[in-house]
Amino acid sequence: MDKINVAVLGATGLVGQKMVEILSKHPWFRISYLGASESKRGLRYMETVKWRFSEYLPDEIVDMRLGGTRPDEIPGNIDIVFSALPSSVAAEVEIELARLGFIIVSNASPLRLERDIPLINPEVNPHHLKLAKLQEARGWKGRILKNPNCTAAILTLSLAPLREYGIKEVIVTTMQAISGAGLRGVPGYEIVDNIIPFIESEEDKIIDETRKILGETTSNGYRPAETIVSATATRVPVLDGHLESVHVRLGKPVDIDDVTSSMEKFVSKPQKLGLPTAPPQPVIVNRYPDRPQPRLDRNAGNGMSVVVGRLEKPRLFDKEWLKYLVLGHNLIRGAAGIAVLVAELYVKEEGLV
Amino acid sequence: MDKINVAVLGATGLVGQKMVEILSKHPWFRISYLGASESKRGLRYMETVKWRFSEYLPDEIVDMRLGGTRPDEIPGNIDIVFSALPSSVAAEVEIELARLGFIIVSNASPLRLERDIPLINPEVNPHHLKLAKLQEARGWKGRILKNPNCTAAILTLSLAPLREYGIKEVIVTTMQAISGAGLRGVPGYEIVDNIIPFIESEEDKIIDETRKILGETTSNGYRPAETIVSATATRVPVLDGHLESVHVRLGKPVDIDDVTSSMEKFVSKPQKLGLPTAPPQPVIVNRYPDRPQPRLDRNAGNGMSVVVGRLEKPRLFDKEWLKYLVLGHNLIRGAAGIAVLVAELYVKEEGLV
Amino acid sequence: MDKINVAVLGATGLVGQKMVEILSKHPWFRISYLGASESKRGLRYMETVKWRFSEYLPDEIVDMRLGGTRPDEIPGNIDIVFSALPSSVAAEVEIELARLGFIIVSNASPLRLERDIPLINPEVNPHHLKLAKLQEARGWKGRILKNPNCTAAILTLSLAPLREYGIKEVIVTTMQAISGAGLRGVPGYEIVDNIIPFIESEEDKIIDETRKILGETTSNGYRPAETIVSATATRVPVLDGHLESVHVRLGKPVDIDDVTSSMEKFVSKPQKLGLPTAPPQPVIVNRYPDRPQPRLDRNAGNGMSVVVGRLEKPRLFDKEWLKYLVLGHNLIRGAAGIAVLVAELYVKEEGLV
Amino acid sequence: MDKINVAVLGATGLVGQKMVEILSKHPWFRISYLGASESKRGLRYMETVKWRFSEYLPDEIVDMRLGGTRPDEIPGNIDIVFSALPSSVAAEVEIELARLGFIIVSNASPLRLERDIPLINPEVNPHHLKLAKLQEARGWKGRILKNPNCTAAILTLSLAPLREYGIKEVIVTTMQAISGAGLRGVPGYEIVDNIIPFIESEEDKIIDETRKILGETTSNGYRPAETIVSATATRVPVLDGHLESVHVRLGKPVDIDDVTSSMEKFVSKPQKLGLPTAPPQPVIVNRYPDRPQPRLDRNAGNGMSVVVGRLEKPRLFDKEWLKYLVLGHNLIRGAAGIAVLVAELYVKEEGLV
Repeated sequence: MDKINVAVLGATGLVGQKMVEILSKHPWFRISYLGASESKRGLRYMETVKWRFSEYLPDEIVDMRLGGTRPDEIPGNIDIVFSALPSSVAAEVEIELARLGFIIVSNASPLRLERDIPLINPEVNPHHLKLAKLQEARGWKGRILKNPNCTAAILTLSLAPLREYGIKEVIVTTMQAISGAGLRGVPGYEIVDNIIPFIESEEDKIIDETRKILGETTSNGYRPAETIVSATATRVPVLDGHLESVHVRLGKPVDIDDVTSSMEKFVSKPQKLGLPTAPPQPVIVNRYPDRPQPRLDRNAGNGMSVVVGRLEKPRLFDKEWLKYLVLGHNLIRGAAGIAVLVAELYVKEEGLV
Repeated sequence: MDKINVAVLGATGLVGQKMVEILSKHPWFRISYLGASESKRGLRYMETVKWRFSEYLPDEIVDMRLGGTRPDEIPGNIDIVFSALPSSVAAEVEIELARLGFIIVSNASPLRLERDIPLINPEVNPHHLKLAKLQEARGWKGRILKNPNCTAAILTLSLAPLREYGIKEVIVTTMQAISGAGLRGVPGYEIVDNIIPFIESEEDKIIDETRKILGETTSNGYRPAETIVSATATRVPVLDGHLESVHVRLGKPVDIDDVTSSMEKFVSKPQKLGLPTAPPQPVIVNRYPDRPQPRLDRNAGNGMSVVVGRLEKPRLFDKEWLKYLVLGHNLIRGAAGIAVLVAELYVKEEGLV
Repeated sequence: MDKINVAVLGATGLVGQKMVEILSKHPWFRISYLGASESKRGLRYMETVKWRFSEYLPDEIVDMRLGGTRPDEIPGNIDIVFSALPSSVAAEVEIELARLGFIIVSNASPLRLERDIPLINPEVNPHHLKLAKLQEARGWKGRILKNPNCTAAILTLSLAPLREYGIKEVIVTTMQAISGAGLRGVPGYEIVDNIIPFIESEEDKIIDETRKILGETTSNGYRPAETIVSATATRVPVLDGHLESVHVRLGKPVDIDDVTSSMEKFVSKPQKLGLPTAPPQPVIVNRYPDRPQPRLDRNAGNGMSVVVGRLEKPRLFDKEWLKYLVLGHNLIRGAAGIAVLVAELYVKEEGLV
Repeated sequence: MDKINVAVLGATGLVGQKMVEILSKHPWFRISYLGASESKRGLRYMETVKWRFSEYLPDEIVDMRLGGTRPDEIPGNIDIVFSALPSSVAAEVEIELARLGFIIVSNASPLRLERDIPLINPEVNPHHLKLAKLQEARGWKGRILKNPNCTAAILTLSLAPLREYGIKEVIVTTMQAISGAGLRGVPGYEIVDNIIPFIESEEDKIIDETRKILGETTSNGYRPAETIVSATATRVPVLDGHLESVHVRLGKPVDIDDVTSSMEKFVSKPQKLGLPTAPPQPVIVNRYPDRPQPRLDRNAGNGMSVVVGRLEKPRLFDKEWLKYLVLGHNLIRGAAGIAVLVAELYVKEEGLV
């Protein structure tokens, strides 16, 4: 099979680097274009990037010259554009790319809640992909697909197996890794021996994206789930891996063994379609009392699984309540990996592979 | 005024050290005895301890010879025995000391929930002190007074100003500092770049102690508050200062300004009595969006205040819900400082000063 | 006595903040002007700064409106201008200020090695102050005084008591704290669980400034010490406090007890003049085998002393060799505190107090 | 080929775990016995160990029952015993094992400097293996082989390519990772935001082992190299990877390009014999100015290479001087991996594979 040509815009940031790393050895996709900010135009990728991951990239990526991020300079042979652009410019560039006919898979937050833009956590709401068709009414041939905010991606994957019980209320406190803010987002002087209990806009993203992802599609958009969500987001001195402490009230009394089983058995379309980046077991339940831990569990399922631990019923609360911790790799399950999985789902569903 | 002679048992652990530090410059108390484990008997205090705080102690403390912790070796001129003993031995030693007629103020967890043992967070439930009189029925002349678990102490101080609204439900996730486990409790290899989402017995302590502290005394003991509490406790790479993310459902709809005002104006008996270790403002509300932070706020009120931040109403929840973060210094407000404050309250109430 | 009016330029960076903190309670100086970058002009100081130190500043500082850093806007009633300006603009501003007649005490690195600019570590080379008079040949009435690079300041203070033995060779490896790079200089994602073995230009500063500070003045400048110095500078995950591992070859065989005594007894002009910021004991020798440690020792002498430990003779080396570790607070002894001490020395020597 | 049966004693510590991990997928060796302290006897390996590495071990290891460490209980079918025993018991057990005829490859420090015990860093002094034959004079049939202290292993590997220039003096300051002290060796409360500038006995090990490894064998033992070495060892808040700052005086003036080339081209017997654990390039020179960094470079060559950076000539020093930084993975190159490589070298040289 011929590989599908893809571009990565914002290729030098942490999420962009992770996209490049995953795509550089992808069975379906070939990186044909790397776009970054103007000041880097023409430079070799490896000279420019502060590479922070696995030591070796293929030579053709190491030596690839960076282009810009203007829609009109993306070569016509590109089929999919991965966007790790900063929020400030993402919407404009992505819309223009859609006008030019590109398929965009974007990790950027703008447009995520738009009526006709699928916000996809592939195991949780693959059927939302059909919202993309509504974009034709915008008069463009391209498609914009979004993956969720990292914290919402991890949370909703852990919630997906609980839908069978009904999900009424979710109260979550997050302990988010430094890499979630990008390479320079969290100064060392702020975070060593400290916690910063605030992440700009994060809590609203968790609330609204969770409700969209768990919601239903309608003929002309989507209806958010009725689940009420409250979130408190904090930044902790951890490099990678977001940990979330979850309390959830379900629609009926639950038994811990049943919930555990629901989580462990949970598979969905990406597993059934055999998508290359889909983890065999999306939700792993770790029974040790002191897990999940970011450093030990963030790479589970190559960083694409979430790990749940301490599934318990809060003893004084009604029988519908459940509490647990869930951990996921924010750069992989929460950003670069999930974007690639969204793209895989799309090309498979569209019959392009 | 003649100073009151006090002993510190368990004087070489972190909490014991902090007690020694606070007591060494106390206006009412004089350290007359330091007790530690047998292997240290006869050694000079400063040679023995891994001193981890302010550089200079008075010479008489530096050079004080360590005694043991057997009740029969505590000198008779001691009026108050501060106990920072490990849980495994605390109950037995403390009961024997009470039999011998000593007043014990203990940070150790055993006996905290006993019917006739006051569990005192001085600003929150000073009236519980009267439970101590019930101990006469045990046939001893001494008194055992307990301060709460560090996390419960911080939580209940932040909840105290909310009692006027009724406190129905509390859901809390804690991010607890390394020092809460003592000098050697958390290995460096476990905690750097990591979170350990489990602290043995901690969640039950938070639940049960909170309910006792917020409860009422009865003629022969106490009735726990009806508040239901659920807690998830985690250990984070922070040296000192426990941060707690709180969701609380009150008895009636609340206004953020009113709650803020209730917290900021809250003072109680320790302030009214002018106890030396009582902070002028027990609950400080920090209005910056990214506070409280452990490193910046743990020393507020000399470590005896708690700092609340991000007081908000979760937007999708009923109007009775409130969320906030609260931070307190676990070794001071949560252990050594609160023990001293309990002792001050006792001696003042008993007319000993 | 009337206080001397001072300005702080670059008042919102970490060094500037520390200068403001020290000066806000200074017996001789009164902060009359705070200058920062243009975007902050007119804002209240406390609203602008990310304040990272002791909780409370005097109200007049909290509410002081920020001015700019253009020389022509510094009010004429200012006697001393403290410069914590970034290197890129410092030289130009400071020279213009000198032309306008101001006394500048600067922490910025440009001009430090100039022939007629005193580079002062007050206990080490107070007599270099006289170089300032040579600036009259530049046609200005003002004076530019420099304090050394933080690492050089700490190193040379530990070397000063060794001058009596002759100092032939110094080989130093530094482990420098995050705050040495300013608030945003070291990203959290780079430094957690890591060391960065490179600090731009730092090693040359250590070499050249050490030789200037230990050198002699001449009729028209200075002659660097003949000591040869080699330095390797690293950045470590420590908030404050630079630790330096030193090997030094002296001019004659030494005895550890003699060296210890030389260090402990070392006092100099700042102590003799009773300057307010001078530590009583500039060089503290800690005899515990595992000291100095950054967290435990950085505040020795209010951050103005350095702490030496592990004074030993390398067993296979010639008897002239000595090895030790030295630690100092980079923001205080290495930057803001030393700048204030330089100013104190100047005003005392000039008879202004 | 039949696999060689091996045992691991001290299998639950950090080094023992790493040995188990490497051996569990080894082409030549099969783990047949795991020994730990008495209290763990009979327990399943994975239940007992605090497993801290790659998620999955083969089932037969996971379920293997732990035995003890008494020499008489090591099954006779074992050919090689890997010892990760604590220093306090290692010598006695290992000598008794040698009496019983076992080949012991030991990471424990006792006996390392004995005349007839080879201390092997396989690329540096493979010819020292012949010292083992001298053990016959002790009246035993077995052999005790030692790998060096972690820091000495990394240092001597970086020095090996410099032997051609002569190595006169070495001055090294180490920044050693937490894991070097074992799972519980460094408390979190000691090391966060701190450096501990002391590691018991470490500096003497670096000095004496370096001299033995670089020395020559004689007819009845070895003659240490004449190189004089001085070392200052510190513990830093890094999980894995020891960084060493090296100054070295060579026997003749050197050119940086020549040295770089000598290091990069350096291969030795393990590479020539194609030993499975031998890294293709033992000494990697990283030319970026800010490398090596522990987090980015510790896994180079699967943790078996060392990475050298910042090769420079100290500008004021004689032309024979050189400075650089070298980093190696302390648990792999410095302990478990090197032990396996020693065993591979032995069995290959002895014709057992």
